Amino acid sequence: MHKGRLEAFSDGVLAIVITIMVLEMKVPHAEGHSADFTDLQKLWPVFSSYALSFVYLGIYWNNHHHLFQAVTRVGGGVLWANLHLLFWLSLLPFATGWMGENHFALAPVALYGAVLLAAGFAYYLLVRSLLAHHDADSPLAKAIGADRKGKLSLVLYVVGIALAHWQPWLGIGVYTLVALIWLVPDRRIERTLGH
Amino acid sequence: MHKGRLEAFSDGVLAIVITIMVLEMKVPHAEGHSADFTDLQKLWPVFSSYALSFVYLGIYWNNHHHLFQAVTRVGGGVLWANLHLLFWLSLLPFATGWMGENHFALAPVALYGAVLLAAGFAYYLLVRSLLAHHDADSPLAKAIGADRKGKLSLVLYVVGIALAHWQPWLGIGVYTLVALIWLVPDRRIERTLGH
Amino acid sequence: MHKGRLEAFSDGVLAIVITIMVLEMKVPHAEGHSADFTDLQKLWPVFSSYALSFVYLGIYWNNHHHLFQAVTRVGGGVLWANLHLLFWLSLLPFATGWMGENHFALAPVALYGAVLLAAGFAYYLLVRSLLAHHDADSPLAKAIGADRKGKLSLVLYVVGIALAHWQPWLGIGVYTLVALIWLVPDRRIERTLGH
Amino acid sequence: MHKGRLEAFSDGVLAIVITIMVLEMKVPHAEGHSADFTDLQKLWPVFSSYALSFVYLGIYWNNHHHLFQAVTRVGGGVLWANLHLLFWLSLLPFATGWMGENHFALAPVALYGAVLLAAGFAYYLLVRSLLAHHDADSPLAKAIGADRKGKLSLVLYVVGIALAHWQPWLGIGVYTLVALIWLVPDRRIERTLGH
Repeated sequence: MHKGRLEAFSDGVLAIVITIMVLEMKVPHAEGHSADFTDLQKLWPVFSSYALSFVYLGIYWNNHHHLFQAVTRVGGGVLWANLHLLFWLSLLPFATGWMGENHFALAPVALYGAVLLAAGFAYYLLVRSLLAHHDADSPLAKAIGADRKGKLSLVLYVVGIALAHWQPWLGIGVYTLVALIWLVPDRRIERTLGH
Repeated sequence: MHKGRLEAFSDGVLAIVITIMVLEMKVPHAEGHSADFTDLQKLWPVFSSYALSFVYLGIYWNNHHHLFQAVTRVGGGVLWANLHLLFWLSLLPFATGWMGENHFALAPVALYGAVLLAAGFAYYLLVRSLLAHHDADSPLAKAIGADRKGKLSLVLYVVGIALAHWQPWLGIGVYTLVALIWLVPDRRIERTLGH
Repeated sequence: MHKGRLEAFSDGVLAIVITIMVLEMKVPHAEGHSADFTDLQKLWPVFSSYALSFVYLGIYWNNHHHLFQAVTRVGGGVLWANLHLLFWLSLLPFATGWMGENHFALAPVALYGAVLLAAGFAYYLLVRSLLAHHDADSPLAKAIGADRKGKLSLVLYVVGIALAHWQPWLGIGVYTLVALIWLVPDRRIERTLGH
Repeated sequence: MHKGRLEAFSDGVLAIVITIMVLEMKVPHAEGHSADFTDLQKLWPVFSSYALSFVYLGIYWNNHHHLFQAVTRVGGGVLWANLHLLFWLSLLPFATGWMGENHFALAPVALYGAVLLAAGFAYYLLVRSLLAHHDADSPLAKAIGADRKGKLSLVLYVVGIALAHWQPWLGIGVYTLVALIWLVPDRRIERTLGH
């Protein structure tokens, strides 16, 4: 089985998920007058939630892109592991909208972290199912290595969700930290493939 | 005629259908306060409807992917048979939203089954129109074989719709059963192509 | 310049246009009770408008697919002629929604015809701009020939719009007739390419 | 790293952004009667905003297409420069909708210009990050040259935003002027690649 259509379908879903999030950023409506800069200022929690989720989806797209460049074989289990990842990522617009509209209240911030945690775990499972089809000395296996970043992220999401129950802004801070850790594209794969 | 653009267009439509369904999962709004975990709990029928439809669309994408890997020739009739399938699948978000919002009431559950039945029948017609362009000993024809799963699904959808009139939850149970039957990817094609 | 990305972008836009139309088919909401089959029956004008537009977009996708199979060279003018076609097709969901919600009243039916007319004219311009890059004895030029179907469609749209002012249903009848004329895929190109 | 998936993902996002803008053009609803041509006339600011943004996104797609035809190597920084461009372009539907619904009032016109400015600057950064991976005598470097059009556009956006504070229509006029300047596809690249 070749990986082309899996990549195309994933690109399609990610492109749509990243774009429909902006639909949650509703055009301000008000009785009589709604074309003021002050109307716009009220949108900043929605806008900053959107920006954070955009960065997260960009990270997933980048990592997915890097990951599948090292992949040579795709089996049936990988198709479902990939769909499982897309399922959780497709819930991000909902979690983003709820968080933005409620100005980073406890429950939405915790839900947002839970969706990130589920997506992170799904990515971990996808990597595992890919490794099962590749040898231990394949470029993919070498590029993944111990996957410290992936495991650390899962721990940090749990920490973020826990902290959010005390102070929602701390949760957001931890999620932003994880995004920053990943903003550096997966150089392991780039480096390994470069050789 | 080559099959590349048909696959790309189908991937596009399926990616959009699978993603816009999540737009039916409206961010909870309430007077004053809507950022509670209890608001989220009310969404479980919408969420579980979404999850079931996501699995169904994943199955269709997987089977479509497998099917067209064995295809070598595509004629004009196949283009329309494929669009016919996409038409019914494009109605799934509507049926999903109606079912979720009405907590699995009779009419929405029956409609959901009817859309699944129509899509299943359209897939059957697509397979037939593809077989008409391939020899009886082609990999495609061997891989499809007697298409027992496809025929059984159509019967089960009818059973599910009928049972839904008595007890909607039984209908959902049957639709879930069909999804489980298909969750195993179409190993027939994988096996035949493997040789 | 190669045509691959133009095809991919067109497929993307057409896939989205064909799919977001279904968002106009709103899940029925009513005070207290909205999960009845009677609620569904009220949706038939929206549903039949959707079905007609789906067929039209399917025809455009099919013809676009056939057309570009015969194309060997794409210039800058073709990119814009193609975007111009996509612009009018992107207005079809709006026209479809307005027509369906107003039960085929005069103004929406006339607007629907106007969008079809503009799209048909844009397709004609696209074909002209492609022919300008190909010789008179190229497969493309032979396949297009006198383009009788294309010209007839434009005339019929005008007739349909005019008739709609007298009796909206006659307009719909003419638009449906044009769709039926085109449902046969562009065999001219298939036949010519077959040689 | 090959550029295929970057192009495909960008095409996907641009196709969705260009299409979901039309969702802002809401089907007119009114008590009792809303199927009049006069209801349609009220939509002209929304329609003309949509048309302007469609042209802008078409320009970006065309230029992106031309740009990446000359590209031979893509690094990790380019992936993020590209996502940064897509981020600003994804905000165009929101700015378009706000501007159209408020009949070209000051704040929305200024915001629209700000989004165009940010997108223009992001495109400039993308070109820079691509040049960093290519030699000074590569086809890409020659095709870009001094990038006078790109720099002029940024200046004109600032002028447009400033003028909008005095007279919103002047802002729109300047944005339209920039679109006209770019409507001519990037012949520099076409010419250079032609040799």
